[in-house]
Amino acid sequence: MERKVYLTNTPLEKARELFLYAASQQEMGEEEINTVEAVGRVTAKPVFAQLSSPHYHASAMDGIAVNAVNTFGASPTSPRRLLLGENAFYIDTGGPLPQGCNAVIMIEELFFPEKDNSLVVEIRQPATPWQHVRSIGEDIVAGEMILPSYHLIRPLDIGALLNGGIFTITVLQKPRVGIIPTGTELIPPGKRPEPGQIIESNSFAFAAFVQSWGGKANKLPIVKDDFQLLENALLQAATDNDLLLISAGSSAGRRDHTFGVLNKVGEVLLHGVAMRPGKPVILGRIGSIPVVGIPGYPVAAHMALELFVKPLLYRWQKQKPSPKEVLSASVSRRIVSSLKDEEFLRMKVGKVDDKFVATPLSRGAGVSLSLVRADGQSVIPQDKEGLETGEKIRVELWRSREEVEKAIVCLGSHDLSLDILADFLKKEEKGYTFSSAHVGSMGGIMALKRGEAHLAGMHLLDPETGLYNIPYLQRYLPGIHLALVHLARREQGLMVAPGNPKRIFNIRDLYRPGIVFINRQKGAGTRIFLDFALKNEGLDPQNIEGYDREEFNHLAVAASVAAGSADAGLGIRAAADALGVDFIPLAQESYELAIPEHFLNSPPCRALLEIIGSKSFRDVVEKMGGYNLEQSGRVAWRSS
Amino acid sequence: MERKVYLTNTPLEKARELFLYAASQQEMGEEEINTVEAVGRVTAKPVFAQLSSPHYHASAMDGIAVNAVNTFGASPTSPRRLLLGENAFYIDTGGPLPQGCNAVIMIEELFFPEKDNSLVVEIRQPATPWQHVRSIGEDIVAGEMILPSYHLIRPLDIGALLNGGIFTITVLQKPRVGIIPTGTELIPPGKRPEPGQIIESNSFAFAAFVQSWGGKANKLPIVKDDFQLLENALLQAATDNDLLLISAGSSAGRRDHTFGVLNKVGEVLLHGVAMRPGKPVILGRIGSIPVVGIPGYPVAAHMALELFVKPLLYRWQKQKPSPKEVLSASVSRRIVSSLKDEEFLRMKVGKVDDKFVATPLSRGAGVSLSLVRADGQSVIPQDKEGLETGEKIRVELWRSREEVEKAIVCLGSHDLSLDILADFLKKEEKGYTFSSAHVGSMGGIMALKRGEAHLAGMHLLDPETGLYNIPYLQRYLPGIHLALVHLARREQGLMVAPGNPKRIFNIRDLYRPGIVFINRQKGAGTRIFLDFALKNEGLDPQNIEGYDREEFNHLAVAASVAAGSADAGLGIRAAADALGVDFIPLAQESYELAIPEHFLNSPPCRALLEIIGSKSFRDVVEKMGGYNLEQSGRVAWRSS
Repeated sequence: MERKVYLTNTPLEKARELFLYAASQQEMGEEEINTVEAVGRVTAKPVFAQLSSPHYHASAMDGIAVNAVNTFGASPTSPRRLLLGENAFYIDTGGPLPQGCNAVIMIEELFFPEKDNSLVVEIRQPATPWQHVRSIGEDIVAGEMILPSYHLIRPLDIGALLNGGIFTITVLQKPRVGIIPTGTELIPPGKRPEPGQIIESNSFAFAAFVQSWGGKANKLPIVKDDFQLLENALLQAATDNDLLLISAGSSAGRRDHTFGVLNKVGEVLLHGVAMRPGKPVILGRIGSIPVVGIPGYPVAAHMALELFVKPLLYRWQKQKPSPKEVLSASVSRRIVSSLKDEEFLRMKVGKVDDKFVATPLSRGAGVSLSLVRADGQSVIPQDKEGLETGEKIRVELWRSREEVEKAIVCLGSHDLSLDILADFLKKEEKGYTFSSAHVGSMGGIMALKRGEAHLAGMHLLDPETGLYNIPYLQRYLPGIHLALVHLARREQGLMVAPGNPKRIFNIRDLYRPGIVFINRQKGAGTRIFLDFALKNEGLDPQNIEGYDREEFNHLAVAASVAAGSADAGLGIRAAADALGVDFIPLAQESYELAIPEHFLNSPPCRALLEIIGSKSFRDVVEKMGGYNLEQSGRVAWRSS
Repeated sequence: MERKVYLTNTPLEKARELFLYAASQQEMGEEEINTVEAVGRVTAKPVFAQLSSPHYHASAMDGIAVNAVNTFGASPTSPRRLLLGENAFYIDTGGPLPQGCNAVIMIEELFFPEKDNSLVVEIRQPATPWQHVRSIGEDIVAGEMILPSYHLIRPLDIGALLNGGIFTITVLQKPRVGIIPTGTELIPPGKRPEPGQIIESNSFAFAAFVQSWGGKANKLPIVKDDFQLLENALLQAATDNDLLLISAGSSAGRRDHTFGVLNKVGEVLLHGVAMRPGKPVILGRIGSIPVVGIPGYPVAAHMALELFVKPLLYRWQKQKPSPKEVLSASVSRRIVSSLKDEEFLRMKVGKVDDKFVATPLSRGAGVSLSLVRADGQSVIPQDKEGLETGEKIRVELWRSREEVEKAIVCLGSHDLSLDILADFLKKEEKGYTFSSAHVGSMGGIMALKRGEAHLAGMHLLDPETGLYNIPYLQRYLPGIHLALVHLARREQGLMVAPGNPKRIFNIRDLYRPGIVFINRQKGAGTRIFLDFALKNEGLDPQNIEGYDREEFNHLAVAASVAAGSADAGLGIRAAADALGVDFIPLAQESYELAIPEHFLNSPPCRALLEIIGSKSFRDVVEKMGGYNLEQSGRVAWRSS
């Protein structure tokens, strides 16, 4: 079994320069399209009006057309008479001025002095030449430039183009981007995958980005991990695309063929960029067609798209991407970063007490949800080892600044009811959003202490007193005035195989011979709960088989049970439901929100509390199962 | 002939409230679409993951899957052996962990101690549980909310949605907007209109805007100005649209039927808003379908769209339009505005010496090109009579701030070669744009004096000396150090009917009996030129028939000649070419650019001068006809 390691660690800027230089040797051609379909396209050359607008002297009013000379001297005391059909002519707005006329008198200013002769019209003031006339070229003069080259055509431009007689327009061709998803394990979206099968999502995300950047996406069929098949697909795609993207297979594993194939049929410019995520990117070309080998993990893939594909598509269309808004925020927790790479972080950002606070989201290259959740992105340069808590960092925003400013920042432990809360708040359309990042219950308490969250969600059982949350707030936030608002009681219980074949109904059953347990890690709320329950019943944890096997979240426990590698684990009902295992409720724990007093009466917090106290919110959360919201919205405790 | 005046003068804010309140009683329904086509659509309800991602414990590396327990204690000095197929299993990145395994060891860390038995593998350090494993739900947990309600779906969201098993998604229906163009004079774009015919451009512009605001545009056929036809069209359109826009016919003229028809088949909420342009707007409804009667002039139409249609479409889609950037600028010339209306002005904006300067573009409701040319928009409130020169005004930008900051502001007389210059500059892709507003040669000089332009274009003949431009700069800008850069010599001449049937070859021919002349207004450069030429030949202007008939621009003169109401007029060749009349060149005048010294050496000016001096620029301008660019780029004069 062989493995060749080709990856270099080329600095990002150097890689971009190299790629863009090589790729932009090619230029987009021109094509002529209908003007009415040209929005979003780019002019290939200047557009000169073919026609004046108006293209004749047109009346701007309903009235009569006259030659102003015939009206000179008219006044209320010495009115002047005109004869319709001879030296005065009815005209509608937009109508062409009859020959010899150079002014329009509005219909309101006409008098008919002879009862039985409606052809005689009287005026009581003179017309000035060209009054109420839209003269030729008032809007557009034939030959005048309407748009310069390389102009991105907007809805605003369509009217003037048509008025100027431009019915077809020469635009730059859209870059055609061939997208080749690779991977034997991939199946197209549409049906539930089996273990070992993965839904092919990258090519659809790539296509959406390519289109939003002005390109034409050609999504090609999935190619299995096979050298020959990839070679065929690549050569075929190179015949009618301007750029090729190969999703996955860009690393140096035994099933990664992008490098080898590209090396054979084209040229590899570079393999491996000093960035994270996204390091194993391949930049190359086949003839003059640039090719990007894109890592398969969605966040890594996104980096490669943003940093290599986007600038190229904009350059080919002679456009500059609009700059993203940027702000400076304090980092809410320490981040260690490698000196080997430039690291890109997806950040949650909020404004707490006039200070922007940024919390990094999951840094995993495979966490596509971090792209959805992010308010923006920060970069830790290659030569920086990381960031200390409170350090300032530049964040490039992915949402509007207003949205970020109006976000309610909730740090702490996560609960599914927070998602429902976020949804209700969004639906109120007051502009507030609920932005929660999961840093654990203790993390939330520490964030409140540092003034980096508006509120914190927690479910911390105090083993000494059996109370939830209050003892922790008393201990860690003694000086801070706050209210503890009850959100939900949620069920903790045993997760067991579907149908509960081993008939496990309580924690005593965990001691039965042949029952294998799977535990949570030390410090987890659920483990504290288990230890407390065992202690209350006077049981010794060490006699449970598997007590020392640790998982790090509810889902992993549920998965172990689902896979049969454990007979029982402890967690919340939602995790059991997600993995389709049975759930034996044991107790309810309190999930509560700690809210500093000065935030409590702010309009966003009032909006939030109103939802928490509403029947419709309770109904939706309780419908999920495992929740009791009888007390939701009650102030459970107030610091004195 | 009757005329009913219905128009009220309702304040804009009141009109908007009234309309949006009435219109937003209606809500958009839901529909289910494919996730891969959902970019730009809005979620109708929260989206919860149907599937965890990964949905099985997956290897994150190529290597072997093991149970970590079997590796504990391994070290370089005490390696541990595993047997492939028994307690170690080859696994690829993305592969599912075999049952009983909970860790992956990378292929790089494997050793094969027995030459002839490749099933025995040796490891020299222990695996930690879950190392190199993407555990179930690491990205997305089934049941977790991926998107809240009312979320505008971005390319960023597509990957996570598919990974979470969301293959179809429930979104708000797009508002269906029926667009009815009206006008007997209208013809569809595609062929050259006859006098009295107008190209129907509004409905195409409306459709482009509606689409950019998230609506579905249903463009309907042109309806002639006929009560019954409009009634039929309106009733028909009301059956399958959520909103109806009627282009033109919204005023109170005798061919304006929107009010009458809407009053009959539905309800008029309001007719006439205190804004300019756009006053004769009609707001109403047919049943619950809102109807907007939109003025026919393109700029007025644009105001009605922006102020009434856009907010409604966004509201129906539960979105807020992204705020436009705003800056404060000095007004470069006095603007008088009516106390009756709120006035919207299209502005050219540039940054001169760290000061933003705004120049209003044509205020005509019919000038569609003012929408194309505008850098932004300003509003003069109803209770304000106008703005003094130098007064600060708020400008909402229609281009990026960067683009506005990098614009080269040229005020003064217009010449077609400036358009070519703008095009060349744009094509250089240095980010500079050439932003010219036409305020006349003297207006340009005054703008330089006030520091409101980077440069000024002029062609001012001094009758005393016969010199162009220099005497004016000496007289009006004595303290300012500047260079006068020659741009072009352009032909002034006589415009005569095609084929020159009256055989007019010089200004003496204007004195022949039966020859009717058309003149320019006093003060126009062309009239100064004529007077100078007549004086040089010792001729008396007053003996020319038509000397006192004045037109206000080159085009109007050309149009008079084209229409046969005059036999000859004076102007530039481009105007003659635009109207298809013959041109008899008389002389060349100098069109030059006055550039203050401190701007002369700036990078944008150097880029400009490089173009002006280039052969390719000369060639393109000279190809237009009537231009001589032999001297272009030469410094004609420098102030001492």
